[in-house]
Amino acid sequence: MKQLKIIKIGGGIIDDAASLAQFLHLFAQVDGPKILVHGGGKGASEMLRALGIAPQLVNGRRITDAATLDTVTMFYAGKTNKAIVAGLQQNRVNALGLSGADGNVIRAVKRPVREIDYGFVGDLTPAGVDAALLGALLGLGLTPVICAITHDGQGQLLNTNADTIAATVAVALSEKFVVELHYCFEKNGVLLDVNDDNSVIEKINLTSYAELKEAGIIADGMIPKLDNSFDALSQGVSKVIIGHALKINDSLKTVLCLN
Amino acid sequence: MKQLKIIKIGGGIIDDAASLAQFLHLFAQVDGPKILVHGGGKGASEMLRALGIAPQLVNGRRITDAATLDTVTMFYAGKTNKAIVAGLQQNRVNALGLSGADGNVIRAVKRPVREIDYGFVGDLTPAGVDAALLGALLGLGLTPVICAITHDGQGQLLNTNADTIAATVAVALSEKFVVELHYCFEKNGVLLDVNDDNSVIEKINLTSYAELKEAGIIADGMIPKLDNSFDALSQGVSKVIIGHALKINDSLKTVLCLN
Repeated sequence: MKQLKIIKIGGGIIDDAASLAQFLHLFAQVDGPKILVHGGGKGASEMLRALGIAPQLVNGRRITDAATLDTVTMFYAGKTNKAIVAGLQQNRVNALGLSGADGNVIRAVKRPVREIDYGFVGDLTPAGVDAALLGALLGLGLTPVICAITHDGQGQLLNTNADTIAATVAVALSEKFVVELHYCFEKNGVLLDVNDDNSVIEKINLTSYAELKEAGIIADGMIPKLDNSFDALSQGVSKVIIGHALKINDSLKTVLCLN
Repeated sequence: MKQLKIIKIGGGIIDDAASLAQFLHLFAQVDGPKILVHGGGKGASEMLRALGIAPQLVNGRRITDAATLDTVTMFYAGKTNKAIVAGLQQNRVNALGLSGADGNVIRAVKRPVREIDYGFVGDLTPAGVDAALLGALLGLGLTPVICAITHDGQGQLLNTNADTIAATVAVALSEKFVVELHYCFEKNGVLLDVNDDNSVIEKINLTSYAELKEAGIIADGMIPKLDNSFDALSQGVSKVIIGHALKINDSLKTVLCLN
């Protein structure tokens, strides 16, 4: 099977035009077929405020009412996605921007209301991803650039977590490709000492992950991120790599695998 | 050669959610491969005002400074394009939203500054259209939905007239398809009597066009529209059809052809 790299970037890199330009230049040098998944950055919250829509967050998650959905769709699928696509074209990468609605590539389900009504938020399963179409687009030499908006197939767009999109697309494409899933952020990897950016743990497998959690070295926000990563590995993704967005072609990074 | 229909809709239909939904339902019933091209509607101007950016128009054309470009990109490529794509998916059309930057499908040139500096506005030639890629996307069963944003290949997005995009894409694709270019608006066609919406002229060729202009029946804003249409016909488009957006499957319309 062919290799495929799915690379997810978050807000920090998107908020700063110079960092984004530097990242896109590095991304252009990544070999082989690849997909970029991006979140939105702080700009969406600033724009909500400029339009007089107060951002509502519960447990760090945005509550997406109709006005918020309109705005994040404009921001993620319009401004951020097209800035990335145009920047990649400048770097001679034939990027194609996609929301989940485009080509029906990611069909989601509106999150059921339990204690909290998250509003127009999409939950995903690998079955909702059209791996055949994404494979065909890659086969045309295109590099899909996927934003954090999906749809339900009934005309409703849905705000969807970009980490989850990256993992779900990675699992779905594992049927056709040997998939490496890269989570890029502002640290060099998973750190032994959170205050020492050079203390990168080079490799974590299921056994060492349990030990690192037990020892309290991996804690807090890293736990759901790594839980989701091991979940993706158990569903067919070959490797998950966690590292710095501006060092994607360096060897300094954390590689997660099952064994 | 295969038939291809390129259908352009304007602001009026986009501004009204019920009309847009009705149009998308009708568009879904149009047979064969098809491409939808859309403008932005009044919403973009409203949003510019909401963000405190005064719309600047000279001779009916928007002057696109950096802040305006950001906003129209969000609006056209984000809000309008994704609303149309999601609405078509609901109607079981596998729509794929595109700006000109996506897949480098339409590369433009920033309009040279002469008497007026139009700012970030793109001028087009058929050579800037990747007809092979659009053909390949159609071959995958996709229906491209193109918004009025292009790029220069150097990282700069450009605001571009949607009528011109429709005509230029139609000419470029005439090498591979027998292309019908449909301009949809809020009248039933080109009218003999501007006050009688049933006085549609069924067919206009180059000879009768000259006569209708001479007689003052076709005047004002219709002249550049028809000049551009005959220009597209002279460059290989098989038919240009002008009619009502909500009657695209009716026979009441004006057909333009060379002879």
